[in-house]
Amino acid sequence: MSGTLYGLGVGPGDPELMTLKAARILSSVSVVAYPAPDSGESFARAIAAEHIDKNAEEISILVPMRPDKFPHEIYAEAAQRIAKRLHQGQDVAVLCEGDPFFYGSFMYLYDLLIEEFPCVVIPGVSSLTACAAVAGRPLAGRNSLLSVIPGPLDSETISAQLNTCEAAAIMKVGRHFKRLYKLVEDEGLLERAVYVERATLSEQRVLPLADVPQDRAPYFSMILIDKGSRPNGPKSVVT
Amino acid sequence: MSGTLYGLGVGPGDPELMTLKAARILSSVSVVAYPAPDSGESFARAIAAEHIDKNAEEISILVPMRPDKFPHEIYAEAAQRIAKRLHQGQDVAVLCEGDPFFYGSFMYLYDLLIEEFPCVVIPGVSSLTACAAVAGRPLAGRNSLLSVIPGPLDSETISAQLNTCEAAAIMKVGRHFKRLYKLVEDEGLLERAVYVERATLSEQRVLPLADVPQDRAPYFSMILIDKGSRPNGPKSVVT
Repeated sequence: MSGTLYGLGVGPGDPELMTLKAARILSSVSVVAYPAPDSGESFARAIAAEHIDKNAEEISILVPMRPDKFPHEIYAEAAQRIAKRLHQGQDVAVLCEGDPFFYGSFMYLYDLLIEEFPCVVIPGVSSLTACAAVAGRPLAGRNSLLSVIPGPLDSETISAQLNTCEAAAIMKVGRHFKRLYKLVEDEGLLERAVYVERATLSEQRVLPLADVPQDRAPYFSMILIDKGSRPNGPKSVVT
Repeated sequence: MSGTLYGLGVGPGDPELMTLKAARILSSVSVVAYPAPDSGESFARAIAAEHIDKNAEEISILVPMRPDKFPHEIYAEAAQRIAKRLHQGQDVAVLCEGDPFFYGSFMYLYDLLIEEFPCVVIPGVSSLTACAAVAGRPLAGRNSLLSVIPGPLDSETISAQLNTCEAAAIMKVGRHFKRLYKLVEDEGLLERAVYVERATLSEQRVLPLADVPQDRAPYFSMILIDKGSRPNGPKSVVT
């Protein structure tokens, strides 16, 4: 009997934003895996630390900090290490910042292991709604069209989306900040945009996009836009 | 000293998908408010029931089940009742299905009360990521453009979004099911669409959209679409 692979969403950063379910499962497994940077602490592990069993084996997946290049080999190797424990009948929990299936790296492990092992994904609070909460701004309401736009996408695609949607969240801002700022400004949306950095952590920053002084942003930052009712938003609602 | 208004996301349905923070705050407040249907139990209350203090006052906000008409008067009256407790220095927790700022009715209370009272929003697991988790399908990865589309929107807007995005979640399917099915089919996406109903609850259903036999769907249902890499998706990534 092989073990079960758990993809555990641990939420956006505040350890209290973990779900009861993720906390319970984490405290019950004998193997815990998580991504970690070349140097320094794993963010996912830091969020979930207090629920890890003291006797659990920990598998640190070293992922270099290059946001737009994906190191397939690293996850293939991690999947092999995890598969070994699952074959031995041990349950393995993989800690995922935010939600496992919302722009997370867990899906690479999932793809590699789902054919062979039982797998359970526990959804978590995503950065999307966490940023809206700390900004005190509803993300999308009633019948608003919401676009979730990764910042590294090309400018033409982003502008078209900003033009069509009623609400938008631009993710993975990072070093694309200056270009994204300009795109938002060119669409006449600067006054309706808010910038959120490291939501729910003590070093969190929330400010109008127009007031952001720097040219770059950390990877964990987001731009939220809410047009309200704009002429070029969706035209009608079928009742 | 007035009390604090809490907007508590209680998650998509499984009581264990509440966050530790929502559970703690809920157990500490003396007044709890929640939407409830004309007849029957409040879904938000059912999710969070075990964390409600036995001595807490409960305010049931009766909301008739008409998904596309919004009864402003009901929320205005509820806001007045809640304001009275806040003025008396009592903390009030409003229970919100999923996340308070993700297509929830909490934003109406928030708009009415935010000017006068301190307000804290606790994000929750949204139906968006819960549906992806139970379907076992990543919602969006890497630099995928994700459209969150309310089903009641007009067909032209929905088709345009389905054409442009790489991944889509169609919310509030309900009685628009048949029209939405046709729109997905017309975009050639039927094979890439999955239907999820009442995610994380015992009566949950997950099946390929093409296999759904009925013409209507409950309000708490969603269609998830993942195109993978399609020619008319976003063209390039700025690295």
